[in-house]
Amino acid sequence: MIAPGGTIGILGGGQLGRMLSIAAAQLGFDVCIFTDEPDSPAARVSARTFVANYLDAAALADFARRVDVVTTEFENVPAQTAEALIAAGARVAPSPRALAIAQDRVDEKLFLNSLGIATPRFAAVNSQAELDAALASIGAPALLKTRRLGYDGRGQIRIDTLQDARDAYEKLGAPGILEAWCAFEREISIIAARGADGATAFYDACENEHAGGILSRTILPARVEVQTEHSAREAATAVLSALGYVGVLTIEFFVLPGGALVANEIAPRVHNSGHWTTEGAVTSQFEQHIRAVAGWPLGSTERRCAVEMINLIGNDATQWATLAADTSACLHLYGKRDTRTGRKMGHVTRLG
Amino acid sequence: MIAPGGTIGILGGGQLGRMLSIAAAQLGFDVCIFTDEPDSPAARVSARTFVANYLDAAALADFARRVDVVTTEFENVPAQTAEALIAAGARVAPSPRALAIAQDRVDEKLFLNSLGIATPRFAAVNSQAELDAALASIGAPALLKTRRLGYDGRGQIRIDTLQDARDAYEKLGAPGILEAWCAFEREISIIAARGADGATAFYDACENEHAGGILSRTILPARVEVQTEHSAREAATAVLSALGYVGVLTIEFFVLPGGALVANEIAPRVHNSGHWTTEGAVTSQFEQHIRAVAGWPLGSTERRCAVEMINLIGNDATQWATLAADTSACLHLYGKRDTRTGRKMGHVTRLG
Repeated sequence: MIAPGGTIGILGGGQLGRMLSIAAAQLGFDVCIFTDEPDSPAARVSARTFVANYLDAAALADFARRVDVVTTEFENVPAQTAEALIAAGARVAPSPRALAIAQDRVDEKLFLNSLGIATPRFAAVNSQAELDAALASIGAPALLKTRRLGYDGRGQIRIDTLQDARDAYEKLGAPGILEAWCAFEREISIIAARGADGATAFYDACENEHAGGILSRTILPARVEVQTEHSAREAATAVLSALGYVGVLTIEFFVLPGGALVANEIAPRVHNSGHWTTEGAVTSQFEQHIRAVAGWPLGSTERRCAVEMINLIGNDATQWATLAADTSACLHLYGKRDTRTGRKMGHVTRLG
Repeated sequence: MIAPGGTIGILGGGQLGRMLSIAAAQLGFDVCIFTDEPDSPAARVSARTFVANYLDAAALADFARRVDVVTTEFENVPAQTAEALIAAGARVAPSPRALAIAQDRVDEKLFLNSLGIATPRFAAVNSQAELDAALASIGAPALLKTRRLGYDGRGQIRIDTLQDARDAYEKLGAPGILEAWCAFEREISIIAARGADGATAFYDACENEHAGGILSRTILPARVEVQTEHSAREAATAVLSALGYVGVLTIEFFVLPGGALVANEIAPRVHNSGHWTTEGAVTSQFEQHIRAVAGWPLGSTERRCAVEMINLIGNDATQWATLAADTSACLHLYGKRDTRTGRKMGHVTRLG
């Protein structure tokens, strides 16, 4: 176990890093951020920050020397970064393998399927011809996505016709993945944690609504059957165990009519749909992640009440004064200097 | 109102500054700490820190230029510091007058009495002869305290005999205050807030236990009659209003058998007995204070559950591993490098 006073290293300087850093400080840790972004949201609440390219070997080696463990706030950290840190003697959690699987939509689905977890039908796409063939096999509607580096609905286009497929391929190029469109009833996520001792813990399933590919709202309790939630936990258990995972990990699922689950995506990190845990659970997902990577026992995931989390995206955050006056709203703003369309600027939690 | 992205200046780098800084960050503010302590707990979670003497005029002027408002995490900030900041153009909340009153135990009691709020009988003591006379008038047992700069039971000695008075005066010297010993049934505190718009809000009364002059435990709900709590709020309202106060202010009271209140102390700041609000109230005392000094509307003070807060003092914090494994304990550690007897190292909150 890393004793209080030790230093947690975090790759990434965004809002998840900011909230992780605050949670680490509450447990008595110092935090050192590594980010390529000057003046990042996480840096402003952390003891120290390296601003450098994620492939800057000298900076990574220095960073590795100054921290007791390294974790990540986003899954698109280059695999070489994690490997360089390990080569420099750092403990890295989650593992480079977990990052690598989550970074590649094809590998991710192959991994899930290998554990018996259903995903949408899919095909890897490396050329227009492969896309045409995949579309013929999978059928429309479908989604063409970039194989790597997609998030918040970026890098994906819906395809209904062969012409759509041509246009989409022109925009996204290869390597890509064609996924069957999933006629889901609702979307849920499971926020799961695994400690260094192998213990696991699960938060109640989160019911999520997206708009334009971006999470807009999460509510708890999710409107799903007990058996559906149980299946989601079983899937999460299999994923955590297969990866020998340490930390918080999120799986997004589509819930089909009748309750069957189709896994959409793994995020090897704390997740937007878990922001409700700051007020709504005994231990927040951020503290839980820090506990796990520091080798501490996991905290209680007990939910304290019904809860709703609403994202503030782009100009939504200009309504801060109205939200500040709403005594039912727990307001979180991320300290981002520039408001941009589709950018997550903050969130509001409401307790039931 | 200070918009998110603005900078809150905090005088003091201790645990209260640390928790204020975290609360400010959650609302989207940057925080700039001014402290004379290198590597302070608050600095490590803040965007920027000035390490300088509290009377360093150049540093204060620079600090004043870089922040949108200045507040304090401890009441023993020199009055000249607040005045220098105001002279340099800074808004300071709470006001130098509130600080000055809370810094002087005689002025504090005169102020409370002037509002009709009962305090223990007291007498200013500037010589051994004055102490003897005060003791004859007030009677034993009594407490000799330094007039200024006392906290956590430091600078006060119980007096039962004339010889005690001699010994105590030799240790504490002048200027002092002799206070009648109060045979209280229990101790409570009221955490109150007043916004820049004059709105007030109160948290439920906290019931406090001290050991060796240091707060050891706070529980809610306090075991007092509704009328007693009502009287405490009335007193707090009078204090806030008389000071034109902006921010969170705490008053400690003795509750006498029968329920009558005797005010013990004013703290013009967030308070150890309000730490339960982080998990136990909709808005924490830290966020409430930041809201007030930023000119925002006050948040909800609603209590979410029964709650117990236990301080980790000195070596208590070496039990961190046991506490980390206790899923009923919300653990807070302050990041202090050195453990010393009587030093507040952290606290634990338990939700009922």
